[in-house]
Amino acid sequence: MSQIDAFVAANQDRFLAELEEFLRIPSVSTLPELRGDMARAARFVASQLESAGLENVELIPTARHPLVYGEWLHAAGKPTVLCYGHYDVQPVEPLDLWEHPPFDPVVHDGSIYARGASDDKGQMMTHIKAVEALIASSGGLPVNVKFLIEGEEEIGGTPFQKYVAGYREKLKADVALVSDTNLWDETTPALCLGLRGLIYMQVQAQGPNRDLHSGLFGGVAQNALFGLIQLLAKAKDENGLLRIPGAYDDIVPPSALEQRSWASLGAGAKEMLKAGLGLDISESEPETSVLNRIWAQPSMDVHGVVGRRFRSAKKPGRDKPLLAEFLGIRSGYVGPGMKTVILSRAKAKISFRLAQGQDPAKMIRGFRQFVEENTPKGIRTTVQVLTSSPAVTMDPDHPAARVAAQVLETVFGKPTAFVRSGGSIPIVAGFAQYLGIPSVLMGFGLPDDSLHSPNEKFSLRSFQLGIRTVAEFLEQYGASNNAA
Amino acid sequence: MSQIDAFVAANQDRFLAELEEFLRIPSVSTLPELRGDMARAARFVASQLESAGLENVELIPTARHPLVYGEWLHAAGKPTVLCYGHYDVQPVEPLDLWEHPPFDPVVHDGSIYARGASDDKGQMMTHIKAVEALIASSGGLPVNVKFLIEGEEEIGGTPFQKYVAGYREKLKADVALVSDTNLWDETTPALCLGLRGLIYMQVQAQGPNRDLHSGLFGGVAQNALFGLIQLLAKAKDENGLLRIPGAYDDIVPPSALEQRSWASLGAGAKEMLKAGLGLDISESEPETSVLNRIWAQPSMDVHGVVGRRFRSAKKPGRDKPLLAEFLGIRSGYVGPGMKTVILSRAKAKISFRLAQGQDPAKMIRGFRQFVEENTPKGIRTTVQVLTSSPAVTMDPDHPAARVAAQVLETVFGKPTAFVRSGGSIPIVAGFAQYLGIPSVLMGFGLPDDSLHSPNEKFSLRSFQLGIRTVAEFLEQYGASNNAA
Repeated sequence: MSQIDAFVAANQDRFLAELEEFLRIPSVSTLPELRGDMARAARFVASQLESAGLENVELIPTARHPLVYGEWLHAAGKPTVLCYGHYDVQPVEPLDLWEHPPFDPVVHDGSIYARGASDDKGQMMTHIKAVEALIASSGGLPVNVKFLIEGEEEIGGTPFQKYVAGYREKLKADVALVSDTNLWDETTPALCLGLRGLIYMQVQAQGPNRDLHSGLFGGVAQNALFGLIQLLAKAKDENGLLRIPGAYDDIVPPSALEQRSWASLGAGAKEMLKAGLGLDISESEPETSVLNRIWAQPSMDVHGVVGRRFRSAKKPGRDKPLLAEFLGIRSGYVGPGMKTVILSRAKAKISFRLAQGQDPAKMIRGFRQFVEENTPKGIRTTVQVLTSSPAVTMDPDHPAARVAAQVLETVFGKPTAFVRSGGSIPIVAGFAQYLGIPSVLMGFGLPDDSLHSPNEKFSLRSFQLGIRTVAEFLEQYGASNNAA
Repeated sequence: MSQIDAFVAANQDRFLAELEEFLRIPSVSTLPELRGDMARAARFVASQLESAGLENVELIPTARHPLVYGEWLHAAGKPTVLCYGHYDVQPVEPLDLWEHPPFDPVVHDGSIYARGASDDKGQMMTHIKAVEALIASSGGLPVNVKFLIEGEEEIGGTPFQKYVAGYREKLKADVALVSDTNLWDETTPALCLGLRGLIYMQVQAQGPNRDLHSGLFGGVAQNALFGLIQLLAKAKDENGLLRIPGAYDDIVPPSALEQRSWASLGAGAKEMLKAGLGLDISESEPETSVLNRIWAQPSMDVHGVVGRRFRSAKKPGRDKPLLAEFLGIRSGYVGPGMKTVILSRAKAKISFRLAQGQDPAKMIRGFRQFVEENTPKGIRTTVQVLTSSPAVTMDPDHPAARVAAQVLETVFGKPTAFVRSGGSIPIVAGFAQYLGIPSVLMGFGLPDDSLHSPNEKFSLRSFQLGIRTVAEFLEQYGASNNAA
C-alpha cells in the first residue's frame, strides 16, 4: 500500500481543491430553481469518474435529477463492488446560523466547512479518489467496480429504488459499498451491520357521520379522535412493550461478535441518554440492553394524530335540520363552534421498526388484528400501509464485512466497533431487495459533523484516512476473494 | 291583547320591510373591511329603538363594534327586563351555495331568506316590535325594559362579558330575555331552562428534551405524543364514563317538570341518533336517558392533539453531536426525518361540560389529580385552563319562567317543551355571573333555519307569533309581578 499512500500524499492538495470545487456547486435537490446546478454537479461527478480512470461514464436521465454511472470491469474472476453515493445536498436554512457561506468552503481546525462536506460529497470522493489512486499506482483495480451516484437522496429514494429494480443486469455486483455513516468517535472506526425494518401506516377512524358540537352531543356521541386515542393507547403496555399479536415473533438475535461489541459500546448509555436527551430509562433495564432495544428489537411510534373536520359534499344547509331538530336548540348559538367539535373523522400516522428476521407482512397482519379487536364501540377504523421493508443485516462473516472490519482496524489503528442503526437506509434495502446483495456500511463522518444543519463539516483526517481505507478495502477484498 | 294584535296585524308589512332593510346591511363582524356596515347596522338598531319609543338610546363604543343601548324605565314598582340580541352575522361563505344573494332578502314559502334572518336580526326584531306595539297601543310598557344589542356575538363574547361586568348598575334588571334559540318544532314552543358549564383546557406533554428519530431511538425514547395519548385514553372507561376523581359529584338532578318533559321529548332519540348521525348508543341505555346525558350530565371531549416539533433556541449545529455521538451513526441518514419523529412535546385541547351544581374549580382539581396520577413514566405534563364557567339553569318556578311557558302555550296553542342545551351561551353565563339574574331563553327559530349556513331563513309565522309572544310575556310578567 505504500505506493498508494505516496500517491494520496502527493495529490492531497489537488484532492482537497477538487472537493472544494464540488462543494461550491449548490446542488440542493429539493429546490427547482437549482436544477441547473444539479446538472452541473452531476457533470462534475462524471468528469471525476473519468479522470479517475473509470469507463463508460454516463449521465442517466430521471424524472428529476440524473444518475451518474461509471465502471471498471477488467478484474477477471474477481468480485464486483458497487460504490454508491449522492451528489445532492440538504437545504441550508437557517442561513444566518452559518459562520461561513455554505457554498464557499473554508478549511480551519483540520476540517472543511460547507454544505455537503460530510453528507455526502466528501465521503463520496473517498471512493473516487481511492479508485484513482489504485489505477494511477498500479494501472488497474484489484476488483471490478461500478459507481452509481444519485441526485435525489435528500428528497426520498423511491424513484432511485425503481431505477435499481429496472437495471438489475447493469448494476449486478457482489457487494455494495456505502460511505454515508460515521466513525464511532474520532479514533474508533465503525462498521454498521444492520438496519431495522420499517412499516409506515395510517390509521383512520370514523365516528358520527358528521362533526358535532361537543356541547350539544358530548356524552352520547363517540368522538373519532378520542376513539383513535383509546385504540392507540392500547398498543403498548406501561413498560413500552408492544401489545400487538406476534410482535416479538421470529426475531433473530444479534451475532456473538455484535453482542460483545454492544456490551462494550453500551457502557454508560443510560446516564448518557438521561443527561443528554432527558430519557427516563427504567432502573431495572440492564445497561447493555439499551443498544439491543434500538438495534435489534421492534418498536412502534405515533408521529401525528389529527382530527379531520367533516366536509360534506352536499349543501351544508341540507345537513343541519336533523342535528338541531332533535335538540330543538340551534347549534350555532354555542360559542366558537369548531373549537369544541366532536370529530367525525380522525387519522394517525404510526410506524413500526422491525428486528432482524421479522416479516413486515406478519407484523401488518398482527396490527390489523389488534385494531379490529380494540377499536372502541361506535368507531370504525381502517388501516392503510404506506411503506414497508424488512430489516437488512450483513453477516459479519461475509468476506466483504471481514475485510472491511480488518482494514478499518489497520488504517485507524484501533479495533472496529460493530454497530447497527435503528433507522433504515432505503437504498440499502433496495440493493438487498432488487440486486440481492449486502452493503458494506463503512463511513468516515464524525458525530459532530452537523449534517443537515448549519456549519456542516468533514474532517480532513477522515478524508485522507477514508481514501486509504477504501483503497485498501478494494485491494484486500480483491486479493482474498474470487467472483461468486 | 286584541289591541296589540290589531297593531301588529296593521303594521306587519312595515315590520317586514324594516327587517328587510336591516338584512340588507352586510354586518359580518369578523371582516375588518365591513366595519362601516357594522356601524351602519348599529345605527339602524338605534333608530329602531327610538322609533319604538325607547329612551336614552346610545351607541357605546368598544374596541371593535359598538353596543346599542336603550331603555324605558317608567313602570314604577315593576320588574325590569333586559332584552338582549346581536346585530352582527356570520360570514356567508360558501357563497355559491346561496340560492339568492345573502344580503338581498327574498320572501317565499312563508319565510324570509337572508344571512342573519334568524340569527339574530329577525329574532331581535321581535323584541323591538313587541315594545313598539305595546307603547303604541297603550302609551307605555307594563314593565321596565332595557335593551342591550351587541355587535360581536359571532366573534366571541369575552369583551362583551367584560362590558357587562363593568356596567352592573346601568344593566341592573330582574331577568334577561334572550331570543336566539328554537321552537322544538314548527308547532311546539320551547323554553330552554339550562345550559351546561364548560371548562376548556390544554394539556402539554414533554418527553425527550429534543425531537428524536424514531429509527434511532424508537424503543427507548418516550414519545411525548404517545405519552399524551396514553394519558388521555384513561380519562374515560369503555362506556364513556369519566374516570376523573369527583367527576360525578354535586350534580343537581333536573326538576320533576323537566324530567316529565324529557321523557316525552326523548322518545325515539336512540333511533334518530343512529339513523341521522351514525351514533351507536348502547342497547342497555334507556331511551329517556339520552337527553339526561347531554343536558344534565358531565362529559369530556378531546378536540385536537398535536405533536409539537422541538425548536431549539440554540444553534442547531450545537445540538447534534450528543445524539449521534452515542449511536455512532448519523441521524440525517435515515430517510425523510421528521415524518418518523419521536416528539419532544405534544399538546391536546380538551373540554369538559359540567352538569348543574358542579363547581368548575373542583372539576379542574380532579382533572389535575388525574393527570398527575396517570402521566406515563418519562413524560412531564402541565395543564392550562383557558376558560371555565359553571352550568346556568333557570328555576322553572321563577315567575318569569312560569309566565314565559304559559304565554308560549297560549300563543302557539300547544304545551311548551321544557328543554336545555348541552352547550353554553356565554352571555347567559355573563348575566348570571355579573348581574346575578336568570335568562328567559325563549326563541322562535326553526331547526331548519340554516343558521351559519347558506340560505339562512326565518319563518314569517315565527316573526309574527314571536312579536305577539314577547309582547304578551312583558304584559303578563308585569301584571303578575312587582319589582324584587
